[in-house]
Amino acid sequence: MAARNVVVAQSGGPTCVINNSLRGIVEGCRRHPGTFGHVYAGHFGIEGILKEELLDLSATSEEEIALLRTSPAAGGIGTCRYKLKKGQDQDFERVVEVFRAHDVGYFFYIGGNDSQDTAHKVSRLAQDRGLDLVATGVPKTIDNDLGDGEFKLLDHSPGYGSVARYYAHYVRQANEENSGSAPADPVLVIQAMGRKIGFIPAAARLADPERTMPIQIYLTESGLTLQQLGENVLRQLESDGRCIVVVSEGFDVGELGTIRDNFGHVQFSSSQQTVAQIVVNYLNTLKFPVPGKARGQVPGTDQRNAIAYASVIDLDEAYAVGRHAVEVAMTEGNGWMATLLRDRGRAGYNIHLDKVPLATVANSERFFPKEWIAPSRVDVTDAFLEYAQPLIGEDWVSVPTVRGLPRFARIARAFAGKKLPPYVPQTYREG
Amino acid sequence: MAARNVVVAQSGGPTCVINNSLRGIVEGCRRHPGTFGHVYAGHFGIEGILKEELLDLSATSEEEIALLRTSPAAGGIGTCRYKLKKGQDQDFERVVEVFRAHDVGYFFYIGGNDSQDTAHKVSRLAQDRGLDLVATGVPKTIDNDLGDGEFKLLDHSPGYGSVARYYAHYVRQANEENSGSAPADPVLVIQAMGRKIGFIPAAARLADPERTMPIQIYLTESGLTLQQLGENVLRQLESDGRCIVVVSEGFDVGELGTIRDNFGHVQFSSSQQTVAQIVVNYLNTLKFPVPGKARGQVPGTDQRNAIAYASVIDLDEAYAVGRHAVEVAMTEGNGWMATLLRDRGRAGYNIHLDKVPLATVANSERFFPKEWIAPSRVDVTDAFLEYAQPLIGEDWVSVPTVRGLPRFARIARAFAGKKLPPYVPQTYREG
Repeated sequence: MAARNVVVAQSGGPTCVINNSLRGIVEGCRRHPGTFGHVYAGHFGIEGILKEELLDLSATSEEEIALLRTSPAAGGIGTCRYKLKKGQDQDFERVVEVFRAHDVGYFFYIGGNDSQDTAHKVSRLAQDRGLDLVATGVPKTIDNDLGDGEFKLLDHSPGYGSVARYYAHYVRQANEENSGSAPADPVLVIQAMGRKIGFIPAAARLADPERTMPIQIYLTESGLTLQQLGENVLRQLESDGRCIVVVSEGFDVGELGTIRDNFGHVQFSSSQQTVAQIVVNYLNTLKFPVPGKARGQVPGTDQRNAIAYASVIDLDEAYAVGRHAVEVAMTEGNGWMATLLRDRGRAGYNIHLDKVPLATVANSERFFPKEWIAPSRVDVTDAFLEYAQPLIGEDWVSVPTVRGLPRFARIARAFAGKKLPPYVPQTYREG
Repeated sequence: MAARNVVVAQSGGPTCVINNSLRGIVEGCRRHPGTFGHVYAGHFGIEGILKEELLDLSATSEEEIALLRTSPAAGGIGTCRYKLKKGQDQDFERVVEVFRAHDVGYFFYIGGNDSQDTAHKVSRLAQDRGLDLVATGVPKTIDNDLGDGEFKLLDHSPGYGSVARYYAHYVRQANEENSGSAPADPVLVIQAMGRKIGFIPAAARLADPERTMPIQIYLTESGLTLQQLGENVLRQLESDGRCIVVVSEGFDVGELGTIRDNFGHVQFSSSQQTVAQIVVNYLNTLKFPVPGKARGQVPGTDQRNAIAYASVIDLDEAYAVGRHAVEVAMTEGNGWMATLLRDRGRAGYNIHLDKVPLATVANSERFFPKEWIAPSRVDVTDAFLEYAQPLIGEDWVSVPTVRGLPRFARIARAFAGKKLPPYVPQTYREG
């Protein structure tokens, strides 16, 4: 059988290690030239596939592909937040047309639950249209919201270990700052990503597993109010003279966080005001038992692209799961997601690579285990620490530099020739 | 002559390398036991001296003092924003009393212009009161606003090289993010410290010395308006489809940045709304020529305590200037600041240690050279690059870790016994 071409694409917010899964797929495919032909990347994810903008990764040297190890975010091939959903039939058909036009027999989709669902639907439609397509999912998300609640489909998403390590270091450094500068700035508010699910703010606990620092963690799931947050902070100021607040961007600030004009009309939607700012402004209306003010900061996208903090475990696992996806595609055919599962019976941290059906993943939901939220609701339990501590690893990653600056991979701008009429966008778009 | 005791104190916002100057002073004093007795630290800066809370650093082991090399911020001995100023005569008198009570013959003050002024005044008052005191200044500030406009008193402040390296890496990573995620998030706004002086936002140019990235830099000194910023960003979106905006926290957002209610009353002061948020909200009222929205982030104190990004050059210079301050105190006596000067005649980056009178530094002012702002006013010139590039160095610093977490120095909580009645605070306090 002749080699068939490959399309790989990324979806959603990037991570520090997403390019390692890409690297795993590219290097995996290059080892089997009889099976895999050109490896194309959808430039900016599914949008690039729809527009028939296919980067030919075969034009990028081995050395540059190797540099993807320490190249964070999606600078190489790009990603997007465009999602193929029910009702976007034309888009699904278009993807199949593009694949057919470029003799694509393999589709690797690196993303979250939605992406696994999309990969599944694309492959089914391809079969309906008589195109033999092997679609394989590769897990990715900093939120760790992919998979199921029991960690049986996926132990953790590649990308999470690195953002967890970021917060372990970030908060530990913030504690040096806060403990040294408390007379002027006793309260530091740090806004963490993860709108709906608390794995990212929970990682702040990794900074202080012995619980010696005055840290309060507010997951979206905590169910606490802004008023309760204020009371907790005042109590911490009474006892410690300072407080570090790590709050999820999805924390419900409720009515107190709504900015209204004198007519009672809402002046600011939450998208015009960060949770950190609302919390800081609220705290600064309270009477502190110590001198000084609250200050806030928003790490933003830095938390998912600060390669210096990347977990070596996470980098290696992201690569391994990419490589494994190639094996799964070859040996099992269509409809699987490569996955990481933890061997819980044995001592220490042991992970094995496995596969789960895309259809199962697409219909699953991960949540932050209720029993991992401490009774105080401003902390997480040791069970969370046992889960998350191994993911951040021990060592620093070594990031190659040139004249003091990180040297990131350069993907050759070589595109496959277009064979189809231009894409006509559907009106549906999700922000 | 019997050995006399030493007091060292830090003032103002910390840096990544401030503890290296402390380490230089402590290790320097330990080499001359005939001259220097106990080395005390004012716990939380001048506030600790006023309260007679003197940490006895002689109780901290050599190993922990050595760990100060990679311990950022002021977690060890603390700092404060309390300043001794004209009219605070009681405070000045109190400092001299505390020094007399503890037989303090040497005072090392690590800080900015104000601190050099304070050190000078304290030593003069001490002479007036018959206490022989050698006061020595040690430069420190991330803002690089210490010294003179011609770089003749000080080439650059220890602390600046590390925050510059932070922005070089931060913006380079942000560019990977922005270039890969532009279809959803074409504009990323990053708020830099340095309210009055542009050295910190200028450092964003270090991320891209070849000027290949769509970066716009807004110093406070740019004189541009929020409206002009908006026009610039729209132009960049036309040409590049994306834009990274680095804006000083002191950038004047003018009337457009003022949030008013329907009666025209100001709803938010600038302290209740970050510049980044004002810029993002304003940009999102404009009609972008590409899909997507502006997003903002605020690195905050992370930029001055993220030790992983610290410049090795900066770490070493901060230490050297601390050590040199001890030499200056021994050989020159009262009234000097240890300094770093650049040898401009020779090729490459060559720095030598020197001294300048405290009185001269106290009456000097540093500004960002006008000719280093590019004609576009959203960039800096190559002259700035020549100045700043050597400061960030080549290599990564090696930060010791234990179980994946940075191991920071632990200063023994050993205080000198109190000998004076409690301090009665003056009412004056600066926020």
